[in-house]
Amino acid sequence: MADTAVRPKATDAARAHETGVDAPKLDIPLVTDKLLGTWADIRRTAREMIKDPAFWRIDGQTHHEHRERVFSQLGLLVQHKSISRAFPAEYGGEDNNGGNLASFEELVLADPSLQIKAGVQWGLFTSAIYQLGTKKHWDKWLRGAVSLEIPGAFAMTETGHGSDVAAIGTTATYDPDTEEFVIHTPFRGAWKDYLGNAAVHGKAATVFAQLITGGVNYGVHCFFVPIRDDNGEFLPGVGGEDDGVKGGLNGIDNGRLHFTQVRVPRENLLNRYGDVAADGSYSSPIASPGRRFFTMLGALVQGRVSLDGAATNASALALKIAVTYGNQRRQFEGAGGVESVLLDYGKHQRRLLPRLATTYAQAFAHDELLQKFDAVFGGANDTEESREDLETLAAALKSLSTWHALDTIQEAREACGGSGFLAENRLVGLRADLDVYVTFEGDNNVLLQLVGKRLLGDYAKQFKGKDSKEIAAFVVGQTAGKVFHGAGLRQFGQAVADLGQVARSVELGLRAKDQHELLTARVQRMVADVAGRLRSASKLGPEAAQALFNENQAELLEAARAHGELLQWEAFTDAVASIEDPGTKQILGWLRDLFGLSLIEKHLSWHLMHGRLSNQRAIAVTRYIDRLCLRLRPHAQDLVDAFGFAPEHVRAPIASGAEQERQEEAAAHYAELAASGAAPAREKKPVKEKKAAKR
Amino acid sequence: MADTAVRPKATDAARAHETGVDAPKLDIPLVTDKLLGTWADIRRTAREMIKDPAFWRIDGQTHHEHRERVFSQLGLLVQHKSISRAFPAEYGGEDNNGGNLASFEELVLADPSLQIKAGVQWGLFTSAIYQLGTKKHWDKWLRGAVSLEIPGAFAMTETGHGSDVAAIGTTATYDPDTEEFVIHTPFRGAWKDYLGNAAVHGKAATVFAQLITGGVNYGVHCFFVPIRDDNGEFLPGVGGEDDGVKGGLNGIDNGRLHFTQVRVPRENLLNRYGDVAADGSYSSPIASPGRRFFTMLGALVQGRVSLDGAATNASALALKIAVTYGNQRRQFEGAGGVESVLLDYGKHQRRLLPRLATTYAQAFAHDELLQKFDAVFGGANDTEESREDLETLAAALKSLSTWHALDTIQEAREACGGSGFLAENRLVGLRADLDVYVTFEGDNNVLLQLVGKRLLGDYAKQFKGKDSKEIAAFVVGQTAGKVFHGAGLRQFGQAVADLGQVARSVELGLRAKDQHELLTARVQRMVADVAGRLRSASKLGPEAAQALFNENQAELLEAARAHGELLQWEAFTDAVASIEDPGTKQILGWLRDLFGLSLIEKHLSWHLMHGRLSNQRAIAVTRYIDRLCLRLRPHAQDLVDAFGFAPEHVRAPIASGAEQERQEEAAAHYAELAASGAAPAREKKPVKEKKAAKR
Repeated sequence: MADTAVRPKATDAARAHETGVDAPKLDIPLVTDKLLGTWADIRRTAREMIKDPAFWRIDGQTHHEHRERVFSQLGLLVQHKSISRAFPAEYGGEDNNGGNLASFEELVLADPSLQIKAGVQWGLFTSAIYQLGTKKHWDKWLRGAVSLEIPGAFAMTETGHGSDVAAIGTTATYDPDTEEFVIHTPFRGAWKDYLGNAAVHGKAATVFAQLITGGVNYGVHCFFVPIRDDNGEFLPGVGGEDDGVKGGLNGIDNGRLHFTQVRVPRENLLNRYGDVAADGSYSSPIASPGRRFFTMLGALVQGRVSLDGAATNASALALKIAVTYGNQRRQFEGAGGVESVLLDYGKHQRRLLPRLATTYAQAFAHDELLQKFDAVFGGANDTEESREDLETLAAALKSLSTWHALDTIQEAREACGGSGFLAENRLVGLRADLDVYVTFEGDNNVLLQLVGKRLLGDYAKQFKGKDSKEIAAFVVGQTAGKVFHGAGLRQFGQAVADLGQVARSVELGLRAKDQHELLTARVQRMVADVAGRLRSASKLGPEAAQALFNENQAELLEAARAHGELLQWEAFTDAVASIEDPGTKQILGWLRDLFGLSLIEKHLSWHLMHGRLSNQRAIAVTRYIDRLCLRLRPHAQDLVDAFGFAPEHVRAPIASGAEQERQEEAAAHYAELAASGAAPAREKKPVKEKKAAKR
Repeated sequence: MADTAVRPKATDAARAHETGVDAPKLDIPLVTDKLLGTWADIRRTAREMIKDPAFWRIDGQTHHEHRERVFSQLGLLVQHKSISRAFPAEYGGEDNNGGNLASFEELVLADPSLQIKAGVQWGLFTSAIYQLGTKKHWDKWLRGAVSLEIPGAFAMTETGHGSDVAAIGTTATYDPDTEEFVIHTPFRGAWKDYLGNAAVHGKAATVFAQLITGGVNYGVHCFFVPIRDDNGEFLPGVGGEDDGVKGGLNGIDNGRLHFTQVRVPRENLLNRYGDVAADGSYSSPIASPGRRFFTMLGALVQGRVSLDGAATNASALALKIAVTYGNQRRQFEGAGGVESVLLDYGKHQRRLLPRLATTYAQAFAHDELLQKFDAVFGGANDTEESREDLETLAAALKSLSTWHALDTIQEAREACGGSGFLAENRLVGLRADLDVYVTFEGDNNVLLQLVGKRLLGDYAKQFKGKDSKEIAAFVVGQTAGKVFHGAGLRQFGQAVADLGQVARSVELGLRAKDQHELLTARVQRMVADVAGRLRSASKLGPEAAQALFNENQAELLEAARAHGELLQWEAFTDAVASIEDPGTKQILGWLRDLFGLSLIEKHLSWHLMHGRLSNQRAIAVTRYIDRLCLRLRPHAQDLVDAFGFAPEHVRAPIASGAEQERQEEAAAHYAELAASGAAPAREKKPVKEKKAAKR
């Protein structure tokens, strides 16, 4: 652990120098509060807890050692009562869904393996018992699952089926004679795979299987299945394999499980959404098999919600490290004979500051997502529609933020050069661990496709009962707010709060309201275009229809991404509007502009081709981004300090102030040498070269 | 090791079905020859050697175990005479510079740690002795370095200075009384850092230091410095630290070294480009200090050259794995009730095929680079200009291909989902190991800046002696071939071979010659624009001039990147033109088009804003890329098989045919079940839903 100050000493002076006396100043504690969001206190409690080195990752451990360390850390979480907030009071919880996830998301700062292993035990295994089971299951297993007496695996994914859960091969066939379910793996592709807690620690599993009774397959349901005895040996009929070393998250014992005619009592069916009576008759509160399936999966949406928050935290940490180092590290002699600080290079600003803006946007959007999650699962707003909105929003934001994390951590690592590649500076470990976030809890491309289909569905609803003439008129006249209903944070077209209040003297045509229009119009137009092209699908045969969809798949995913980006922009804008301190408001307004314009720059060709931006305005986008980078550069340290990480969360020697000390030592050495008169002279240039230099 | 066939059984049938009887067919052995390039035989020898599992990486080893394994593998390379080709025959070599690198680049398939550790020992440490030293040094140390009797570190980079080598702090002060150099580390930032072989195995180091004699600093020179005794203990005055665990390449013992008044004989100065006589007087065959410095660094360019080849190999391997898996893995029911193969999804094609096209372009461009390297270092074309061209080309191609490797390996890993995250499937290990390739042997951004400055310099040469009116006329009238001279594979404007011969019925305005024009014009215009804006710099003070450069830095780097992309495109086009088999020529022509159009699509907004593409043609770019993906899709397996990897090089269970077997087993299970009449029925939909479905 570095014990020097994290904040470079020269920052305040540098800011004053670079921006003048009247320059705006960021109110760091205020922004920290905003970023920590609705459950700031709980986040602070979690961050305080993980200042204890017992929670930290140790580099260089074997995956076996790392697994044992993380398992023991789970015990510490239980002792701290850190993981049970979501469950009812009578089972040791606090009925606090939003707070539970907020706390959980902070664990990524200690070790992502700890976060995800805790997620397996309590977010998946225990939650399956709670969300899919009923009181008899809670009474039987919930306390043990919460207390870690029953470490458990969440056995949904199979080697042969990941994202397409409905097609899993494992069967649970009801035997009315013994009133038991027979859990069975019919072929190799139906082995459960990639399950945390399966290779070593799990004693039970919540197993997803095709429920068959009376010769009918009622689709995927979940069963509580004991898998190991107290000595850690597999129970009869259960087998498995270790998934071995992974690209990251090696503190988690992922593994495979298979079942050969394993019998469990009828009561082990987690029966909230579907039950089998003793005589084998099936019943469900949800008649539609499709809706029942999606309701069961939807009950487990918290994984996606929390990954959005954890990925945002990881991005913030990477930027804290890279910006701090970039403010201290010097390389190549600049004006005045002094080596330049990295962050004074235009390209270095371009590499880090737009990613910082995106990370802010994500933090604000995540808090809105978490509020929505809390309202649904706490019961304040639990309707079929609000659940569907939550799932769509979680899918969109999780995809964007987990990809952003990989991109940002990698850029931060490169921006720190060779020192960024050392494990001690954390970036490579974060990158490796976060990698799988983009494909687990829903592959990002599959999630974006869900979002895209929802957008298409909402779009189609507008036309119900309209004839083709009306539709044509509608498509032509579409403007913000007319096309979609609430597949996001708010109704499209509901005015984003106080757009007018953040107006500043910016480039003509690139103000907040222009950004909003451009971003909104792009989503609407892309969805309308794809919908228009897919309209003929219903008249085609299945193969041709699939080919048609295929042709439009990439653009549909792009529309879904654009939708997520818009929602993040709106959340950022609302956050800026809610701030009263004028300096802070101004700086965050610039940062929001940087986010918005970076999105527009990224999709510039689209805006040009669709006539939304003139050439002149398009050129102004890049110029204005450059200007915003320059404006924000003096505030970069404040902006990363506002994430509120303590040295115990950062732990990277290059961001500890050690680099600043090295720079000062080197400068002092040369100054002393010069003063002593002992400094060697520069080699004289040959005559010819001198002349050339003069010319 | 998987022992099933790597090639999916159904490929040939599928191709015939999808493309018709007269469809073109790739001549795989022919393409393999082309891809292996000028030193194909030597590459094949290296690939044969590393089929031995003794060369393979073992996942899950600690970094200590991994280091020892790799060190012992270096011994195997010596036994196989695999690493000495570049040196003269009398020191155990073959005077074969191109072949030496070709062989070296293949080692990445066994374990990137092996490749880079070999690179440290023979490409850097031994090469420094050979390239910077003279016969007395060769006689003394070259055989020991080649045979691994003297494991050595290449001590150039310091904690405080990486890319800016000229500014390193270590000093070598000549003492005429004892005729010794005193090697000294004056402050912490001047510790040598990130050096392979420094933490454990190195017995000597080639140390770069400021040469000071007679009170004058003659700049950076290289010295042979023993660092450890035969017991592995540091010699007096030498100290160091282990860099510990890294993000990858953990088979290499990177570490730090520092020197406290360490004395070495005068003869230990590697004196090819600068010498100190016994009396302390300095002499050099190169009068200009700047040119001398760059000549010394340029002598070590082979590292960058070989990274371009190794990164291309790694990308090829990743695509071989992902495309093979994507051709076997099925997910989500498609037309006809059968689950679709991943590679039949439009988005999946879009993810993998353009990256495959880029990898081909890189392979062809790399062979030209290697030829150039061989001509310079073998003496066939060793002029100051050819060296400068080689360095510029290596900088451009190394940047592009190492970033491409990270991007491609990651996309391949995501395209393989959870199984891609398992170490056994190799992608995560490749990704982690290749990470540092983008910042070592020259940070990619710094290298691109070198390329950019060269482009600016060449541009300025055009105007020598011209007045402003002439310049204006020139800029207006600039067309391909008039602006640059040979900073690349060929003179701009020298016609790329046989553009006309590959013409096919493609989209109007997107043929090969159009692609070439668009790519060329972009480089020229960007360089001209930046040059125009920087012209006023000479009239500004240093701070303002730096600010002006800063504003243009991002665009200059982008111009350098565009230059590299153009060179890759040209190399690809030449390779296509050299093929006679019509089917192969057609398929590779499509692949080259996919590469060219993907580049144009990536920079579409630029082409639009600068009036190079109309809206209509711009829209056609994306549509034509989609069409090319569809055309190439049936040939995807052939195209990755043409990389010529044996199962011992691939070693990923998901690309072994195991997935195909699992798919067939599952399909057979369900078919048997259906035939037996024992298959469970589907749940009946509730009445209401049925009605809705009918409507």
